[in-house]
Amino acid sequence: MEKTVQQLAEHVGGVVEGDSSQVITGAATLTDAEAGDVSFLANLKYEKQIAESKASVIVVGEDVEVTGRTLIRCRDPYYAFMQIVVLIHGHREHRPIGVSARASVAESATIGENVDIHDFTCISENVEIGAGTRIYPNCTVGPGTTIGKDCIIYPNVTIYDGCTIGDRVTIHSGTVVGQDGFGYATHGGVHHKIPQIGAVVIEDDVEIGANCAIDRGTLGDTVIGKGCKFSNLIAIGHNTKIGPHNLLVAQVGIAGSVETGKYCVFGGQVGVVGHIKIGDQVTIAAKSGVTNSVEDGETLAGSPAMPLTLAKRSLTLIKDLPDFRKKLRELDKTVRNFIKGKS
Amino acid sequence: MEKTVQQLAEHVGGVVEGDSSQVITGAATLTDAEAGDVSFLANLKYEKQIAESKASVIVVGEDVEVTGRTLIRCRDPYYAFMQIVVLIHGHREHRPIGVSARASVAESATIGENVDIHDFTCISENVEIGAGTRIYPNCTVGPGTTIGKDCIIYPNVTIYDGCTIGDRVTIHSGTVVGQDGFGYATHGGVHHKIPQIGAVVIEDDVEIGANCAIDRGTLGDTVIGKGCKFSNLIAIGHNTKIGPHNLLVAQVGIAGSVETGKYCVFGGQVGVVGHIKIGDQVTIAAKSGVTNSVEDGETLAGSPAMPLTLAKRSLTLIKDLPDFRKKLRELDKTVRNFIKGKS
Amino acid sequence: MEKTVQQLAEHVGGVVEGDSSQVITGAATLTDAEAGDVSFLANLKYEKQIAESKASVIVVGEDVEVTGRTLIRCRDPYYAFMQIVVLIHGHREHRPIGVSARASVAESATIGENVDIHDFTCISENVEIGAGTRIYPNCTVGPGTTIGKDCIIYPNVTIYDGCTIGDRVTIHSGTVVGQDGFGYATHGGVHHKIPQIGAVVIEDDVEIGANCAIDRGTLGDTVIGKGCKFSNLIAIGHNTKIGPHNLLVAQVGIAGSVETGKYCVFGGQVGVVGHIKIGDQVTIAAKSGVTNSVEDGETLAGSPAMPLTLAKRSLTLIKDLPDFRKKLRELDKTVRNFIKGKS
Repeated sequence: MEKTVQQLAEHVGGVVEGDSSQVITGAATLTDAEAGDVSFLANLKYEKQIAESKASVIVVGEDVEVTGRTLIRCRDPYYAFMQIVVLIHGHREHRPIGVSARASVAESATIGENVDIHDFTCISENVEIGAGTRIYPNCTVGPGTTIGKDCIIYPNVTIYDGCTIGDRVTIHSGTVVGQDGFGYATHGGVHHKIPQIGAVVIEDDVEIGANCAIDRGTLGDTVIGKGCKFSNLIAIGHNTKIGPHNLLVAQVGIAGSVETGKYCVFGGQVGVVGHIKIGDQVTIAAKSGVTNSVEDGETLAGSPAMPLTLAKRSLTLIKDLPDFRKKLRELDKTVRNFIKGKS
Repeated sequence: MEKTVQQLAEHVGGVVEGDSSQVITGAATLTDAEAGDVSFLANLKYEKQIAESKASVIVVGEDVEVTGRTLIRCRDPYYAFMQIVVLIHGHREHRPIGVSARASVAESATIGENVDIHDFTCISENVEIGAGTRIYPNCTVGPGTTIGKDCIIYPNVTIYDGCTIGDRVTIHSGTVVGQDGFGYATHGGVHHKIPQIGAVVIEDDVEIGANCAIDRGTLGDTVIGKGCKFSNLIAIGHNTKIGPHNLLVAQVGIAGSVETGKYCVFGGQVGVVGHIKIGDQVTIAAKSGVTNSVEDGETLAGSPAMPLTLAKRSLTLIKDLPDFRKKLRELDKTVRNFIKGKS
Repeated sequence: MEKTVQQLAEHVGGVVEGDSSQVITGAATLTDAEAGDVSFLANLKYEKQIAESKASVIVVGEDVEVTGRTLIRCRDPYYAFMQIVVLIHGHREHRPIGVSARASVAESATIGENVDIHDFTCISENVEIGAGTRIYPNCTVGPGTTIGKDCIIYPNVTIYDGCTIGDRVTIHSGTVVGQDGFGYATHGGVHHKIPQIGAVVIEDDVEIGANCAIDRGTLGDTVIGKGCKFSNLIAIGHNTKIGPHNLLVAQVGIAGSVETGKYCVFGGQVGVVGHIKIGDQVTIAAKSGVTNSVEDGETLAGSPAMPLTLAKRSLTLIKDLPDFRKKLRELDKTVRNFIKGKS
């Protein structure tokens, strides 16, 4: 879709500097942009890419110093750029297909209006699917599960029995929701399975990446809070409650019976032990191992995790350990020799 | 299902303290329990939750001191509780459906009695499936694979060709068994694929979580021993032999040609390098990296892994490295100045 | 297939020592080999296994000292052994089945000659599939995606819309290619999804393991370079460009906008932060965390990653930290006491 710089600025509530009449047909990063593209600067780290960028217009913050370029200035340039990308390119379009004759839909299932159920997808007994939801091919939805309105379930997703999925939830391919949690009572040399009678509740506006695995609860439910966004290959243990608006980067693993607050961020490959509580707005750096409960607002790094400011100084000193040892030995020798000489 | 406290106690060989006539209709954790629920205390860490619990009866060990509550005392309260959950709630029920007309079953396949094969599942040539096994929708079982009796294969599972699955094996959704191991001979700048002519053998009573990946052997088989339980997103390399009754928590990765003994436990996100041997009853703490063979009975933590007792003291000192450096510098200065003044 | 030792030697351009007339019917490791098997020694670490091996002939390097055994000597014994395994056992055979009546193929799709599309696989609108490509059951290929010639797509794979897969690409089960990258603009307490309008390009001769997840690009594409080989459960972030002939071991996670050079190797569970550049022929040891750009030819280990030689000495000293602390305290005390006594 074509828009002028002026139209883009109005769409995001920004102010144009330079030629507002240029026609924009695409969006790209500063380094990839060609003439006719809009780009953005949200992180000052990339400021020097502006000089060489071929973008016709750049969305920047209100105070950034840039000269000789056409700009759209606004308070939150990343959000503004997102709005522009949506305006120009739109979100993925889903061709309405209705319920395919090659899908398998139980008679007891309740299917809302304008629902798409693609080929080779199985909808089991007593499933309820809200209006406008699209379920792509090769998915299986287990008995008694409820899926809300306007959800998008991509191919090869499995949702087990008795789960509850909210409205506007997106689940990417290969993800599994509601498999049995990892619960066994070991007795007489045998690991006896504990029935996992809870389920999974995914609240509204959640997006889950590809190939994740979210355990159902043992007793009571596993909950993914409203507005959470998960990347790929994430494991969530049974009975864990992820608070609203958490961001989980790829390969995070959170064990069972953990509670997280709102607006937490977990970097890639973070691990969290079971039965702890993580406060609101906690940030855990990539690859950290969290072994204890965390207070509101903390930022941790390392394994075991420690405050980020401490981690930044500590973890980089690991490489100096051979030096420490050498210095400690030398000093020890110096002291011994000196004392020996003086006594 | 309703049971009296007395009936529950008899079922688990326990002794009632308090009102044995109460009717119990559900099972829950101490914090979630309501009136009418049975709960349990297996880990003394949660002892103080008893005071506020609304559970009607609590299963506890023989020596735990609790007053003013109806109790079922027994030697192994967690195992007893598991038996009670099974009694009250049962395991997941599987509706018998037989072989669906919408499944694809090769003529050369041998299907036992009372086998369920759900819609859109493919059973390839020369597959054998034992009596009572249930295979949910959208699974693929490759040519020549044998699956034993009373197995449960959840949706979207892939089992490659030539594998052998024992009796009473459960495989959760998205798991892949028998993909080619990671074997290439690099020559002339090209990674040449080595045919992976082994397969995977999964012994009896194994349960595998969701989205795991178990490589077939290069020459000879990859083996998952009897009674092993895997959580989700676990990677097992080619030709590795996991001993009987191992427990692997989510996101564990074990490289190729590893051998583990019996009753090992691998915490979440543990990594094990290839070509090493791990003894019996070894426990590896979450996130550890095991780089050498491990003797029977050891408990390790850290990356590289070290004995747990040592790790507990060592890893927590990483955060003190800036302090160490500072103290070492100060001491060095003190000594130099003192020696200078005295010489 | 039966071959004489002489025939095997000629096939790999090697020289026989010993009985060249023996008939060989299988290939195995030194420890597993039986009479009639060919085995190999590529890593001198396993040299002592030769004495007890029952192999009839062993492929070894030109300078290895072995006596009393029939040998095939050649320059690159691992590559020679690979060629022999291919000769004797061959690669997996794929029974040609054509396009199954139980597959779902859009009318607008272009299907090349000798293509197999198995049951319950969905080929969406405007997909192009090159000659000789085989797509196993329960896969979904999204609209507008192009797949080259002679590819093998195993069961339960999902490829999203608009992706480009080269020739001779193999993708193992459960892998997802082209799901939306993890991109949100957080504004007013809500994470707003940024349309991911790029796609994924997988170049020729790539093999991807099971249950991997490769994000599509936000703006511009994610690229997996020619000849790359991935193991299982690997996550690749949006807009990352993996250079040609990289090897990625299981559970590696590479964040978005990373560029890697050619012939890099990433060990199991390695994590790489976003927006960095990794040179040619870089090797990252298992479990490392790479937080900065890496020069050509470097070998790193640890988290944060440091040069391997340094890491080998540093990481093993973590276990000595309690000792360091003790010695530092003792030395401090000694010095203080001595100074006190002398002043």
